[in-house]
Amino acid sequence: MGYQRVLLLGATGQTGGSILDGLLECGKFDVDALIRPSSAYSPSVAALPQRGVKTVIADIGAPVDELAILLNGYEIVISAIDAMGQLAQLNLATAAKKAGVKRFVPCAFISIAPPGGVIDLRDEKEVVFQHIRKLFLPYTFIDVGVWFQTSFPTLPSGRVDYASIFIPNTTLHAGGDIPNLLTDIPDIGRFVARIVDDERTLNKYVYTWSDLLSQNQVFSILEEMSGEKIERTHVSADNIEKSIKQIKAALEADPSNLSKRLSLLPAQYSYSRAVRGDNQPAYAKYLGYLDARELYPDFKPKSFREFTRELLDGKAEKPYKDNKLFERLKSGLEDGMVQ
Amino acid sequence: MGYQRVLLLGATGQTGGSILDGLLECGKFDVDALIRPSSAYSPSVAALPQRGVKTVIADIGAPVDELAILLNGYEIVISAIDAMGQLAQLNLATAAKKAGVKRFVPCAFISIAPPGGVIDLRDEKEVVFQHIRKLFLPYTFIDVGVWFQTSFPTLPSGRVDYASIFIPNTTLHAGGDIPNLLTDIPDIGRFVARIVDDERTLNKYVYTWSDLLSQNQVFSILEEMSGEKIERTHVSADNIEKSIKQIKAALEADPSNLSKRLSLLPAQYSYSRAVRGDNQPAYAKYLGYLDARELYPDFKPKSFREFTRELLDGKAEKPYKDNKLFERLKSGLEDGMVQ
Repeated sequence: MGYQRVLLLGATGQTGGSILDGLLECGKFDVDALIRPSSAYSPSVAALPQRGVKTVIADIGAPVDELAILLNGYEIVISAIDAMGQLAQLNLATAAKKAGVKRFVPCAFISIAPPGGVIDLRDEKEVVFQHIRKLFLPYTFIDVGVWFQTSFPTLPSGRVDYASIFIPNTTLHAGGDIPNLLTDIPDIGRFVARIVDDERTLNKYVYTWSDLLSQNQVFSILEEMSGEKIERTHVSADNIEKSIKQIKAALEADPSNLSKRLSLLPAQYSYSRAVRGDNQPAYAKYLGYLDARELYPDFKPKSFREFTRELLDGKAEKPYKDNKLFERLKSGLEDGMVQ
Repeated sequence: MGYQRVLLLGATGQTGGSILDGLLECGKFDVDALIRPSSAYSPSVAALPQRGVKTVIADIGAPVDELAILLNGYEIVISAIDAMGQLAQLNLATAAKKAGVKRFVPCAFISIAPPGGVIDLRDEKEVVFQHIRKLFLPYTFIDVGVWFQTSFPTLPSGRVDYASIFIPNTTLHAGGDIPNLLTDIPDIGRFVARIVDDERTLNKYVYTWSDLLSQNQVFSILEEMSGEKIERTHVSADNIEKSIKQIKAALEADPSNLSKRLSLLPAQYSYSRAVRGDNQPAYAKYLGYLDARELYPDFKPKSFREFTRELLDGKAEKPYKDNKLFERLKSGLEDGMVQ
């Protein structure tokens, strides 16, 4: 068995960066990064060759025949494209089919949720998944639950603010009692490296996780390990549903409002995770997912308690550093919806 | 283990009739028929109690709470609703969830095809499937390939015309070389009785079949067993695709044209089965289907050769007897599309 050749789109992003690390750490893959022309001269792209990662500059909207020539020879194509670029994967998948790619991993990488009106972003991904299935292109769809890095509450002392993307972040959603699958960002890539090297996951859904915790349990762990008391705020299930209706009404009146569009995502995530309770093992299995922990019992992902220890020790990393899309999302949120 | 209580919608239709026969023949089920008020006084409904089948008259569009009371106590609900009534199953599924139904079998019962623009009817079924999944309602989706009864060509002597729904029927689609999964109508119910009594099929797709034959192979079997020579006519892949485009254009100009709407279905079936080649085992498995023949190796469905023997002996039954919807479909076809 030689190295498997992997082409990774989004290698400089949060999820894609973890995947790149995981693939390189595993040592079984020869990884190239697919870079769009607009990012060709960014410092993070410039740093890739030092790690032995060749960059392939390509417009993923190029004619299928051209793109297929570039994809030719890769066994695996993994896309960790940004949330706004989902439909750009349609052309990429068509080219991957033409190039004879053996496994196409489109950008799932969110929490478990059904298609059909629960989360607009999930429905956009479903368009891509359906396109892949129509192509008879071998695939694996990988979801990761919720990141540790966006799950922890802030503390009154401010000592975890350095790693928090929302300050303050002390809101319990719909009571906070529903458990959710959680994954540490660096473990995403370690899971992905195992999943894409496994015949059992071909043409399957897989979910990764390390802990299954409710918001209340997460808050308690932070309180216990820090010795601080968190002043909880609350948003009810009713208010989450009302927010979604308001945002949708606003979007109907002004469909080009990107901040509004972005603010829909956290509201719908909240509805799916905290009201419907989609992001749980029983529901995932009902939807047909395989459990990555059952597939790889030898692999011990980082626990939320271990993560919290690092967080309190000042060793956690804030996600979405210098991410312009995320800054827009935050300003959308600060327009006053849900959080 | 007592009898499982089954409520069957569509018991007097072609597929539902086979399912009723299969469930009764199997002897493990206590079957009631869910009858819509408009059909309450039809002769075929009147004949049900003589077979020990209780009829439950209900408007499936009734408020969910009312409908849930009627569904209460049934372990299994099977819907073999007509092609035009698919979305009426949304309300029925919601009520089934409320009533605690253990397995909901919506109306799939067509040939293997992916959702997402290949067959409009399949996409309508997908809306129902997604609704079921959002409800976390236990389900089994069962597809049956193509019926023997609509697959055989007519012969010059006219001796099989008595059982044919199209006369003449001698057209090879897109060369006629692509194999298709075929099932005898009476075997559908025998498969269904096994499938709904099997834990392995819970929350899964299953396909039934007895033979995997191309149109050319089917024509050859008829020629060989009858001693007659069939004068083949041809419709090319290009013409099939053109027909679909023309029908869609006509429907856009006149969306209420039911004949046009109905004529889209055979054209899209032809595209899926004869051009794309969707209705085959490898593609079904790729889509996540279980194979009913692998699940029940003891059950020997009727082969196409056995069926042809009966057909030539004058013992076959013409499907869709007195079916008004089908008469409309036929007149749509005779408007000149595809066939």
